Amino acid sequence: MAKEKKLVEQITSMDVDFAQWYTDVVKKAELIDYTSVKGCMVIKPAGYAIWENIQKELDRRFKETGVENVYLPMFIPESLLKKESELVEGFAPEVAWVTQGGLEPLQERLCVRPTSETLFSDFYKNDVHSYRDLPKVYNQWCSVVRWEKTTRPFLRSREFLWQEGHTVHATAEEAQERTEQMLNVYADFCEETLAIPVVRGRKTDKEKFAGAVATYTIESLMHDGQALQSGTSHNFGDKFAQAYDIQFTDKDNTLKYAYQTSWGMTTRMIGAIIMVHGDDSGLVLPPNIAPVQVMVIPIQQKKEGVLDKAAEIRNTLAAAGLRARMDDSDKSPGWKFADQEMRGIPIRVEIGPKDMEQNQAVIVRRDTREKITVSLDEIAQKAAEILQTEQKDMFERAKAHRDSHTYTAATKEEFADITANKPGFVKAMWCGDRACEDAIKESYGVTSRCIPFAQEHIADTCVFCGKKADKMVYWGKAY
Amino acid sequence: MAKEKKLVEQITSMDVDFAQWYTDVVKKAELIDYTSVKGCMVIKPAGYAIWENIQKELDRRFKETGVENVYLPMFIPESLLKKESELVEGFAPEVAWVTQGGLEPLQERLCVRPTSETLFSDFYKNDVHSYRDLPKVYNQWCSVVRWEKTTRPFLRSREFLWQEGHTVHATAEEAQERTEQMLNVYADFCEETLAIPVVRGRKTDKEKFAGAVATYTIESLMHDGQALQSGTSHNFGDKFAQAYDIQFTDKDNTLKYAYQTSWGMTTRMIGAIIMVHGDDSGLVLPPNIAPVQVMVIPIQQKKEGVLDKAAEIRNTLAAAGLRARMDDSDKSPGWKFADQEMRGIPIRVEIGPKDMEQNQAVIVRRDTREKITVSLDEIAQKAAEILQTEQKDMFERAKAHRDSHTYTAATKEEFADITANKPGFVKAMWCGDRACEDAIKESYGVTSRCIPFAQEHIADTCVFCGKKADKMVYWGKAY
Repeated sequence: MAKEKKLVEQITSMDVDFAQWYTDVVKKAELIDYTSVKGCMVIKPAGYAIWENIQKELDRRFKETGVENVYLPMFIPESLLKKESELVEGFAPEVAWVTQGGLEPLQERLCVRPTSETLFSDFYKNDVHSYRDLPKVYNQWCSVVRWEKTTRPFLRSREFLWQEGHTVHATAEEAQERTEQMLNVYADFCEETLAIPVVRGRKTDKEKFAGAVATYTIESLMHDGQALQSGTSHNFGDKFAQAYDIQFTDKDNTLKYAYQTSWGMTTRMIGAIIMVHGDDSGLVLPPNIAPVQVMVIPIQQKKEGVLDKAAEIRNTLAAAGLRARMDDSDKSPGWKFADQEMRGIPIRVEIGPKDMEQNQAVIVRRDTREKITVSLDEIAQKAAEILQTEQKDMFERAKAHRDSHTYTAATKEEFADITANKPGFVKAMWCGDRACEDAIKESYGVTSRCIPFAQEHIADTCVFCGKKADKMVYWGKAY
Repeated sequence: MAKEKKLVEQITSMDVDFAQWYTDVVKKAELIDYTSVKGCMVIKPAGYAIWENIQKELDRRFKETGVENVYLPMFIPESLLKKESELVEGFAPEVAWVTQGGLEPLQERLCVRPTSETLFSDFYKNDVHSYRDLPKVYNQWCSVVRWEKTTRPFLRSREFLWQEGHTVHATAEEAQERTEQMLNVYADFCEETLAIPVVRGRKTDKEKFAGAVATYTIESLMHDGQALQSGTSHNFGDKFAQAYDIQFTDKDNTLKYAYQTSWGMTTRMIGAIIMVHGDDSGLVLPPNIAPVQVMVIPIQQKKEGVLDKAAEIRNTLAAAGLRARMDDSDKSPGWKFADQEMRGIPIRVEIGPKDMEQNQAVIVRRDTREKITVSLDEIAQKAAEILQTEQKDMFERAKAHRDSHTYTAATKEEFADITANKPGFVKAMWCGDRACEDAIKESYGVTSRCIPFAQEHIADTCVFCGKKADKMVYWGKAY
C-alpha cells in the first residue's frame, strides 16, 4: 500500500492550497510539462487527447450550423493592426513582435496574432463584393500569442491553442443572431460534453472585447468559488467593416458596410474541467470528453486466464464503442487503481480469479468510488449505462455546487459580507455606471462577470450607489 | 454557353504555361487567397477541407502505429537552437526572429519554429530517464515558418501547415525501424489516398536534412515532369541526444544516449494533388480525399419535382456514406458543370425530367468525362463503385505518366540529352562523390532526388566521372 499512498500524497489537498493542488494535478496526471520557453508549456499526450476531443466535438457542432474552416497567417503587419485603433490599444501591451526575417531586418515589423479580427477583415475586404457572397461563416483552429507577465498552465500562457470564428453578414440582425447562436453552441457544449454548468449573459462595456459593440459570455464556477470566463462571442456591428472598408452591393443595388462577429474557446477549458470536477485523488474527467473512458485492471494477473479475460473484456467494451484500455503493466493493482484515479479515467473494471469463477466483474466509478458488480454477459451495456449516469451526476453535482455558491446581495453591507467571506458568484443590482463598476472592483476585489439573460429583480437600487437600477449582474473573483 | 466557356477560359492551358495554369487553378478553384502578409496565404474553405481530410487520414494511420499527439511551443530561444550547430547552419538564413514581447525588448531573441527537433530534444531530456520511458512516439500538427525569398501557393510559403513526428528510442535499430516505418506510412498514404505514385529511397548526404544521420524520402512526379519531395523521414542516431544530453538508464543499469527520428508531411501535398491530377478544366480530386465526392445537378430545375428528386438523390448518397452535395443555385446547368469540374469534384449526377420519367440519372466522371446512365434504384451503389474505379484509374494514369517520364541514362551524353530535352526522372549510376553530385547540378540543372530502395544496375560506372559506381540514383528538376 505504501506506493499507492505515495502517489496520492504527491498531490496537495485542495482545501489546503487550491492553487498548489491544481499545479500538482496538471503535472501528476501528465497533462503538461514546463519548457525552456518562459510562459509556454508542452501539452503532453494525456492533455492533448482531451483537446482533440474538445476539437472534434466543438467542430461537429460548428459544422452543423454551417461553419467552414480556413487558415489565415500567424503574422499581422503593424500597419494592418493599427487600422482598428481600439483593438491595438487593447492588445499592444501584450503582443510579440517579429523584427527580423532570415538575416535581414524587416521593413515593417509583424506581430504574432493575439487574435485575428484584423486579418479576417483584410481578407473579407477582398472576398466580399455582393450580397450573394454573404454570409461567410469561417473558423480557424490555431495558436495565438499574448505576452502575459504571470502564467498558469492552461489558464494563462503566452501561447495557447484555440478556435476563432469570424463571420460577416449583410444585416445587423443576422450578425446579432449568429453572435447569440454561437454563444449557445458553447453553452450547450460545456453543459452536455464537459458537464460544466454555465451562466449565459452579456459583458458590461468595461469588460467587453476591444472593438466590439457587444460581447456575450458564458461564465462557470470553479470548485474554489472563483469564476472562469469560458467562451465569448462578439458582435462588431459594422465597426470593423468601416475601419477595413468591407463593402458589398446589396439587393437594392446600393453599397453597404457588412456586419461581423467573432467567437472563441480555448485550451483553458481543460483547466476548467480540472477545477470543476477534480478531487484530492487527481483528475476526474467527464465520460463524454475522456480520451480513455474505461481502464480494465486485472487482479492477480499472473494466475492463468486472468490477462486473457481482461483483454477479452477490453475488446468487448471497445467493440461496443467505448474508449477502453487495459493496464497489464507489472505494477500492483493498488498502484494501478491510484494511477487510473489520478488520470481521471471515469470507470475501472476490476477482474480477478474470483470474479471469473462467478462470471462477473466489479466496475468502480471514479467520481463516487461506488462499486457495482456486473455480469460479464452484459458488461458493455452496463459500462455504457454507468458512464451515462456518471456524466449526468457530474453535471448535477457541479450545478449544485455552483448554485450553493451563488449568493444574492440586496444591500452594500450584504455585498461586502459575501465578497469578503463567501467565495462564489454574487448577484446584485447595478445602475449601469462605469464609476460604480470600477468602485466595486476597487472596494471588494470582484469584477462583473456578466449581465445574465435570465434576469431577476433583487432590489430597486444599485448595490453600490443606491441610485435606481434595473440590471442584475453576476459579480465574482475570476481566473 | 458563353458563361460556361468563360469560366474555363480563365484558366491558362497547362501546355501553354504550366506555372500560370497552376496559379489559375488554385485561385479559380478557390483554394487560396493572397494576403497583405508577403509570402503568406489564406487557405480558403475548399483548400482547408482537403487539408482536414489529409489530417484525418494521416492521423488515423499514425495512431495505428502507436503515435500520440502533443503540442510544443512555437518559439525557440536562440541559445537552445544553437546547441545543434548543423541545424542552425541549415536554418539560420531562413528563420523569423521575435525580439520584442509587449512593450519590452526580449533579453534573448526567440525564433519562430522552422521545425522542432531542438524543442523536442529539450523536452525529452526532462521526460526520459529510464528504458521504461522508451520509446516516445510523439507527433504535432502545427504551422512552421521559413523566411523564403520566392514563394508559391502550397509549394513554398513563409508559413505552412504540417505535422512533425519526433520519436526517441533505446536502440539505434529501433530508431531505424521507425524511420522506415513512417516513410512507408507516407508512401502508402500517397498511393492509396492521394492516388500519387511515389519512389521510396534515401537522400544523398548533400540533400539530407541538417543534423540527420540519414534522410529517407518519397518522390513524386508532377504533370510537367518536375519532381516533388513529398515526405521525409530522418534518422538522427544519437547526435541530438549528445547535443541536448538525452540520457537514460538502460536495463543493464548503464547510462546511454537515446536515438531519435523525425518525419514530416505538409500542405504542399495539396500542390501535388493539383499538379499530378489536374487538367485544363481545373482541379481533379481523387475520390478518397475529395471533401465533396458527388455533386447532384438538377436539369430544368424549375419543372415540378426535379429539385425534390435531386434532393432525394443527394440524401440517398449521403445516407450511403458518400460526401454528396446538390447545386440548386439559380445558375444554368452548363455553368454548374463547369463549376463542379473546376473544383475537381470526382463525379456529378445529372437529373432532369426525362431521366425521372425513366427512373434513371446520368453520372459523369470528372477525370474521363465518361457518362454512365444508372437506375435510381441502385444509384448509391453505382456511385460508390464509380468513385472506386475513378480512384484506381487516377492512380494508374499517374503511374503510367510517371513511368513514361522516367528515363535511363548509361552515359554522359544520354544524361545530357535527357536532362535537356525530356522533363521527368532520369535514372543513372553515381560514384557516391559529392563533387560529381555538385557538378551534375551545375552542368545539367538537376538534383539527386533519391537513391531508391529498388536498385537497378544500369552501368558499372558513374554517369559523370566514369569511376566505378554501385548506386543508382533518381535525378530530376524539383519544386
